[in-house]
Amino acid sequence: MLIVKKFGGTSVGNRDRIFNVANRCIEDYKNGNDVVVVLSAMGKYTDVLIDMAKEINPNPPKREMDMILTTGEQQSVALMAMAMASMGVPAVSLNAYQVAMHTTSTYSNARVKRIDTERIRAELEQHKIVIVTGFQGVNKFDDYTTLGRGGSDTTAVALAAALHADKCEIYTDVDGVYTADPRKVPDARKLKNVTYDEMLELATLGAGVLHNRSVELAKKYGVRLVVRSSLNTNEGTVVREGSKMEKMIVSGVAADPDAARVAVIGLKDEPGIAFKLFNALAQQGINIDMILQSIGRHGKKDISFTCTDDDADLAKQIIDDLMEFEEIDVDKGVSKVSIVGAGMQTHPGVAAKMFEALFDANINIRMISTSEIRVTVLINEKNTDRAINAIHEKFNLGEE
Amino acid sequence: MLIVKKFGGTSVGNRDRIFNVANRCIEDYKNGNDVVVVLSAMGKYTDVLIDMAKEINPNPPKREMDMILTTGEQQSVALMAMAMASMGVPAVSLNAYQVAMHTTSTYSNARVKRIDTERIRAELEQHKIVIVTGFQGVNKFDDYTTLGRGGSDTTAVALAAALHADKCEIYTDVDGVYTADPRKVPDARKLKNVTYDEMLELATLGAGVLHNRSVELAKKYGVRLVVRSSLNTNEGTVVREGSKMEKMIVSGVAADPDAARVAVIGLKDEPGIAFKLFNALAQQGINIDMILQSIGRHGKKDISFTCTDDDADLAKQIIDDLMEFEEIDVDKGVSKVSIVGAGMQTHPGVAAKMFEALFDANINIRMISTSEIRVTVLINEKNTDRAINAIHEKFNLGEE
Repeated sequence: MLIVKKFGGTSVGNRDRIFNVANRCIEDYKNGNDVVVVLSAMGKYTDVLIDMAKEINPNPPKREMDMILTTGEQQSVALMAMAMASMGVPAVSLNAYQVAMHTTSTYSNARVKRIDTERIRAELEQHKIVIVTGFQGVNKFDDYTTLGRGGSDTTAVALAAALHADKCEIYTDVDGVYTADPRKVPDARKLKNVTYDEMLELATLGAGVLHNRSVELAKKYGVRLVVRSSLNTNEGTVVREGSKMEKMIVSGVAADPDAARVAVIGLKDEPGIAFKLFNALAQQGINIDMILQSIGRHGKKDISFTCTDDDADLAKQIIDDLMEFEEIDVDKGVSKVSIVGAGMQTHPGVAAKMFEALFDANINIRMISTSEIRVTVLINEKNTDRAINAIHEKFNLGEE
Repeated sequence: MLIVKKFGGTSVGNRDRIFNVANRCIEDYKNGNDVVVVLSAMGKYTDVLIDMAKEINPNPPKREMDMILTTGEQQSVALMAMAMASMGVPAVSLNAYQVAMHTTSTYSNARVKRIDTERIRAELEQHKIVIVTGFQGVNKFDDYTTLGRGGSDTTAVALAAALHADKCEIYTDVDGVYTADPRKVPDARKLKNVTYDEMLELATLGAGVLHNRSVELAKKYGVRLVVRSSLNTNEGTVVREGSKMEKMIVSGVAADPDAARVAVIGLKDEPGIAFKLFNALAQQGINIDMILQSIGRHGKKDISFTCTDDDADLAKQIIDDLMEFEEIDVDKGVSKVSIVGAGMQTHPGVAAKMFEALFDANINIRMISTSEIRVTVLINEKNTDRAINAIHEKFNLGEE
């Protein structure tokens, strides 16, 4: 079996942890598997490098930033190969250029274009564990690039796809994907399986286990993902195509407190107003989530939308400068609560059941948005924990 | 003019020093020159990386050691490019793979085979300052290599040769090459010129300004070397082919206290004894310097030689195990004192004058060895400073 295993910075943050990771990889190797390991930079070393750079130049050229940042992973992989060598296991570290991992030209936010697998295959054939730098690539100018947020997960999935790996294990500090945040919902339960789409909705909602870029890539190439802990040997959660036999309607409930609601009251009710507004926000890089537009009356209409707390004031200012309206209101004291589940596509009444749970808990719903596998409501932020517990219980998510 | 400038780790050890180097390079750039800069890793960062590696594996694979060590220079060059960018000067950093700097396969002690100059030329044509990682290369396996001791000097000279640079400036913490160590000899004088051969003899004697590998390379390709200080703008010393018009007979006097004398008394006087002895030492990597062999009598002979203090005990042990003799004596309390100068090839009596200086100072000579441009004597270590002062004065080296 060919296994790609990805470990984050915390997992290789010191000597003991490096050897812990080495042991886990060697176990698979000794069981006769081909093992490819993807590593991030050690601990917070990427932040250290960013600070070093900013001390020299507060606004460093992105090309040079990627040049310095890629050294972090190169150090991790070399140390891991040394650790394995000290345990008598042949290993070889490869950086993006040695792999080679070809990306688009965009520094600091490149996308994987193509991976040459020749070198990795040759090293595997010599029965070596192959340790690859996450987060980085090389562009057509022979310059180093980095893949942006969640980059090492993306490296692992892209490698698994290119190598036709049997699975891609993403090691984190949690056991897997839960029906709700276990710190908030005491009877939250770990899921054995979720679909790519469910995982994508959870990622978007800030459940934080996997970056959505890597899940999208896994879905596209059918890479079997396993989310598991580097601290124990529990089974983890498998992310794969949904099965028709899936019994669960709702897989989990997630909350995102980093939401703000912007309400623009008394806009002119004429064509192109919404386009004009959201186009202006998009050009400033503001991501809009839920959108609610009132029916026009007396030649006026209202538009409300959500964005992150950080973007809310900028959004207000852009709209102020852009168009005429009667009033604009920003409320940062709101949070998004969502239920996610591939099953709900074919089960009517799921949204109604969620609203009932909130009504029973006396929690007011401010906005509603739905996708085929998700229902999201906007509520007062202080009710977040009560809301997810009420919903979790209503759908019996704690039970197998 | 195309100038290659090399700065060591101390010169880029912190923010201020990085900007100091940036300024010196930008000055040449603004005067209309093409500038290629070669940098070492910052301060003692290479040692930090070595410690990190040894903590994981006390005997790390050399390939992986080079993989981690090369990150040090990559960080320096990226930071330097950022510094120059902040001053409005276009700069680009390149590592060994990007250059590309092709070396032999030997990890930790590779030699430069070939340098592609296409990328550097292209960047220079776009009026950028090009900043290249010293000390590193890439071998035929696409793996990183390091060039061993004095590696960054070698990188600079090799680049200067490949680019047909007008000069290669090596920046150090001293002003240039002196007639003697200024800390030991008060009236020591900085030399305007030395020949490659004189520089080589001085390097071998541990004068420490330039590594002999880089001087050999400069001699081979006729690269005009300038040794100067990164702390001031003094002119420095030019290293180049010797001129026939050179007035100085002796360029300088150098001392190396790291010498030990091993005397093997009462060896059998038969053919092959010296070969057997020195071959065994060479196989253990022990470098032998001065050799003295007595004329055989009564079927016996004596062999004395010098090596470093560190190697002396191992040498004794090897000889003990290898052959029969009457007695072996190791004396670590000796030092080598040498005069160096291209002029002495054609001037008889130079050695005699040196011996006279030592006789006047009542210093006993234990061994003598000569080359075409050097005379070395072995003396009691405690007399070292008196010896070099006496010789310096005898040859009037303090006078222009």
